[in-house]
Amino acid sequence: MECGEPVRQVRVRAGMTVGELIEQLGEAGAYNGGALSRAVRIYERMLRDRDATRFFGLAGAMVPAGMGGIVTDLIEQGFIDILVSTGANCVHDILEAIGCHHYHGTSLCSDVELRQHSINRIYDVYLPDDAFEHLEAFIQGVLGDLPSGSTMTIAELLAEIGKQLPGGILATAAKKQVPVFVPALQDSMIGLQVWLFSQTHPFTIDACGDMKGLIDHCYGATRAGALIIGGGVPKNYIFQGMLLTPRGFDYAIQLTGDRPDLGGLSGATLDEARSWGKLEGEAEAVTVYGDATITLPLLVAATLERISHD
Amino acid sequence: MECGEPVRQVRVRAGMTVGELIEQLGEAGAYNGGALSRAVRIYERMLRDRDATRFFGLAGAMVPAGMGGIVTDLIEQGFIDILVSTGANCVHDILEAIGCHHYHGTSLCSDVELRQHSINRIYDVYLPDDAFEHLEAFIQGVLGDLPSGSTMTIAELLAEIGKQLPGGILATAAKKQVPVFVPALQDSMIGLQVWLFSQTHPFTIDACGDMKGLIDHCYGATRAGALIIGGGVPKNYIFQGMLLTPRGFDYAIQLTGDRPDLGGLSGATLDEARSWGKLEGEAEAVTVYGDATITLPLLVAATLERISHD
Amino acid sequence: MECGEPVRQVRVRAGMTVGELIEQLGEAGAYNGGALSRAVRIYERMLRDRDATRFFGLAGAMVPAGMGGIVTDLIEQGFIDILVSTGANCVHDILEAIGCHHYHGTSLCSDVELRQHSINRIYDVYLPDDAFEHLEAFIQGVLGDLPSGSTMTIAELLAEIGKQLPGGILATAAKKQVPVFVPALQDSMIGLQVWLFSQTHPFTIDACGDMKGLIDHCYGATRAGALIIGGGVPKNYIFQGMLLTPRGFDYAIQLTGDRPDLGGLSGATLDEARSWGKLEGEAEAVTVYGDATITLPLLVAATLERISHD
Amino acid sequence: MECGEPVRQVRVRAGMTVGELIEQLGEAGAYNGGALSRAVRIYERMLRDRDATRFFGLAGAMVPAGMGGIVTDLIEQGFIDILVSTGANCVHDILEAIGCHHYHGTSLCSDVELRQHSINRIYDVYLPDDAFEHLEAFIQGVLGDLPSGSTMTIAELLAEIGKQLPGGILATAAKKQVPVFVPALQDSMIGLQVWLFSQTHPFTIDACGDMKGLIDHCYGATRAGALIIGGGVPKNYIFQGMLLTPRGFDYAIQLTGDRPDLGGLSGATLDEARSWGKLEGEAEAVTVYGDATITLPLLVAATLERISHD
Repeated sequence: MECGEPVRQVRVRAGMTVGELIEQLGEAGAYNGGALSRAVRIYERMLRDRDATRFFGLAGAMVPAGMGGIVTDLIEQGFIDILVSTGANCVHDILEAIGCHHYHGTSLCSDVELRQHSINRIYDVYLPDDAFEHLEAFIQGVLGDLPSGSTMTIAELLAEIGKQLPGGILATAAKKQVPVFVPALQDSMIGLQVWLFSQTHPFTIDACGDMKGLIDHCYGATRAGALIIGGGVPKNYIFQGMLLTPRGFDYAIQLTGDRPDLGGLSGATLDEARSWGKLEGEAEAVTVYGDATITLPLLVAATLERISHD
Repeated sequence: MECGEPVRQVRVRAGMTVGELIEQLGEAGAYNGGALSRAVRIYERMLRDRDATRFFGLAGAMVPAGMGGIVTDLIEQGFIDILVSTGANCVHDILEAIGCHHYHGTSLCSDVELRQHSINRIYDVYLPDDAFEHLEAFIQGVLGDLPSGSTMTIAELLAEIGKQLPGGILATAAKKQVPVFVPALQDSMIGLQVWLFSQTHPFTIDACGDMKGLIDHCYGATRAGALIIGGGVPKNYIFQGMLLTPRGFDYAIQLTGDRPDLGGLSGATLDEARSWGKLEGEAEAVTVYGDATITLPLLVAATLERISHD
Repeated sequence: MECGEPVRQVRVRAGMTVGELIEQLGEAGAYNGGALSRAVRIYERMLRDRDATRFFGLAGAMVPAGMGGIVTDLIEQGFIDILVSTGANCVHDILEAIGCHHYHGTSLCSDVELRQHSINRIYDVYLPDDAFEHLEAFIQGVLGDLPSGSTMTIAELLAEIGKQLPGGILATAAKKQVPVFVPALQDSMIGLQVWLFSQTHPFTIDACGDMKGLIDHCYGATRAGALIIGGGVPKNYIFQGMLLTPRGFDYAIQLTGDRPDLGGLSGATLDEARSWGKLEGEAEAVTVYGDATITLPLLVAATLERISHD
Repeated sequence: MECGEPVRQVRVRAGMTVGELIEQLGEAGAYNGGALSRAVRIYERMLRDRDATRFFGLAGAMVPAGMGGIVTDLIEQGFIDILVSTGANCVHDILEAIGCHHYHGTSLCSDVELRQHSINRIYDVYLPDDAFEHLEAFIQGVLGDLPSGSTMTIAELLAEIGKQLPGGILATAAKKQVPVFVPALQDSMIGLQVWLFSQTHPFTIDACGDMKGLIDHCYGATRAGALIIGGGVPKNYIFQGMLLTPRGFDYAIQLTGDRPDLGGLSGATLDEARSWGKLEGEAEAVTVYGDATITLPLLVAATLERISHD
């Protein structure tokens, strides 16, 4: 029950780097700005720890908002060992990779009129309907090239998809052999396409087939860290893997816009995860509440700046 | 661009019914109180519409918070035709059904100490660890009774589980032959148990196997309505089914604690769903922002009161 | 570090009273539903405690949303001893009292078009511009009737205004001699009107003149309780009064839609207030997060139901 | 009803400046990250516009969180012409200026224990009780030096206080003759001290005395812009001034953690302000939802970087 360091008033100046700004937030140390500076410290240690397996959880419509580039680069740089994502983020990653685009729009519009113009809305991002025709052609092509009568796990299918893409999250994960787990794949356009394909071709996705890979990764980890964007299935799945092992995560960061008092996992504090043993009692962990389209770029840019100082 | 009815100042009195209170909120008509009164009107029409197929989406830790009883009763009363849930809500439903309990706790506690006492925390709800041993015994028993070498869909497995439970959501759904879709089943303790079982027994869950059932229900619906608690995979999956049919939902209500400006589906307005064609342009739809442990009981109690006036 | 009562699954039925519903939420006991049931228990004790001075804090645009009627009735019933409000709620109370109306509208509209139609918007409530002309005439009339060269406190002025109104919050407070403190009166249309009047008439509002009255009430209280809607200046002012006395509040309830991690007072937990001594260490206190257009009517209706059981 | 620019995937790199990061967020253009990039563009134009009067609204516990330094520097650099603040921020500014400190703490603590250690908590910031003794001595000293029997406006008093401080917001505002309006001064420790002083000395604060100054500034403005942190009284007061003039603001930025659907002013969109005429129909305006301890430093650092490119 003691006071820590004095709060220092933040000073900003033209041309300061992101890392310098985060340094200032750390001197102030309060609220979510303070939490973000602690997240940078934890993420730095997690990325420097060569014995740590790094999990990355990707929920929320992050690729339509342009956050996919950051994930792609983190995989390319070797900073993600296991990716767990919603199906939707994979769908939007494929769309971008095959040359379709998301567009700047506005949330102050008539959705009925948008419908008439065949434009789908994700808050203030617009996505023309025809993108899904390209998606269908691409996915059916990938599925058609698979050996007849296949049974695959979700991660295997996503690796096959990634191999046929020129860039983006799935392509880079395939290239770097980073497994991509999407527990609810059928809850996405990819799942719909798989189902359509399976109507005319023998083809099965083994729902629990990826569990072994996940648990092997969890067991194999000397230490483990997780950066979790948003919550949802990816957060739960990442933590669930650890429940079967004797130990929990050593590092954990969550960037979420949700709130704890509603009881849902997406807003739950990382401390709550300690009671379940998902985090080690002494794990370094912090939750930053806010929009990940702001906090994720800040976190990654500032952490890379620190790491580059070697 | 016109003014509607005058806002009337709310009057409450001792002994008023929930329906009378909602009536008052409707006279006021503002903010989420007004939205809730509109939700009751829509839900009343949806439940009275005998040609409507009613979907129910269950996300968030609702069963640990005691909201499972409402879902069970709605199924029993014939007001849910298709249930889409997170895996966790099914897990907690089974726990309650096999005699384990969730307990009143507090969020102001040391999670490290809770861990030492083998108590898991869900915000201010406590769940002792040993519940999961009972769960394991139960699920392994169910799986062991299945014909050897089975391939099942998730809904089929959950129906088998429900048949062996004395009460609760899954039991009642099984009894009333209401399909329960849990796209991310592997992201739950049930999924873990299935995987453990499959290590020693030939057993496969066909991830996309339920898609046909979902889509058949969507195609078969003359009209369709959805009551969605929370968002997440259940919301997406319910709407996704409609994407393959020529029409969207006619009635939709979402109770969520999230917010739209973060771009995620859980907080997205139902109007956004119109742009995707998930909702008919003229569909009656409303989102009520708030904690579903308050808004769900209110919505259901007030709607039942209206319906009982026949 | 122990489990409390088991969570009971909520059961709702047609025709149940609000008090019965809250009883069910109490049996479940989780999240904000559980918090609301505790709020009812605390408010019941606070209203039954004849030695307790009851403060009521009113922030947020509550009167335009029809919540003014509840406040008026609580004053009439003797359940509010001191009211602290934003200026805006007083303005809207006067508007309703002099026969102007707020109207049902929608938040999905063009504000530029609304402006062209001389309609002011408060989320989904519309208020035609001409209401402010009636307000001006009324306030100038009241001010013109005051003795020339007056210096008044804010509460004195609001009492004068209340005396000339036929009903509503200010009228009822004046009738029942309940002081109404509005620390930021100048930050409202009433303040603007006072200033306009003072340009041509000698008239001064003594900003700190009400402090004595507030502190006398705080000192005079054997026990004290506060029901705080929203936060803001009313919350701070109510707690500030207690800072000068040797003791803090014994009962406190806050209904707010804000969140604690942003550091602002409006979202701060009532526990935080214990560190300042604003609440007694043993005070019964609870914060219910959510929209007060839902939680306030529920709280008051359920509490009145309990009290009526005598 | 058209698509705008394509969303570009964000790329971050070690050592990038804050302005470069914001540039990337602008290319992505979505959610609050996109809104923040638009805020930077608007703030740049507002600061470059030499004919614009710049208002700054300061609500929320910003000084305890170290955000006061940014406000001080903006005043020093001539980028704030009128400051409207809560009383609390002025109190905490004085505390820092007279050598007291706020300290890093934690929100996961026992507030009853904190009370026993005479430490006051503001979320995760700690403030020892004795700071208020220093505050009392300082304020009483300032008041004692004033001419006997004074009647002052709030801004006049705050300017007197500022003149006797070595640094910080009030000191710099006094030096640069920037008026500081605090409509609810009595709702703060400063107000308490003024009242205590007035018990033994003839001294009056004229509550509406600053209205003329505010309105003169509003009338005198060729163009006007507002940067509003948080909402509350400062937001309302800044906009209220414009209601008496024939025109509204030309530039407006709000950084808030609140949400619009609760109806309160703090979460209201700036578009809503257009319906009231507080903003010109064509005004450039944007609301960024999130914690201002993150968004304010970003906004100011990136805008200064752009301006320095001349």
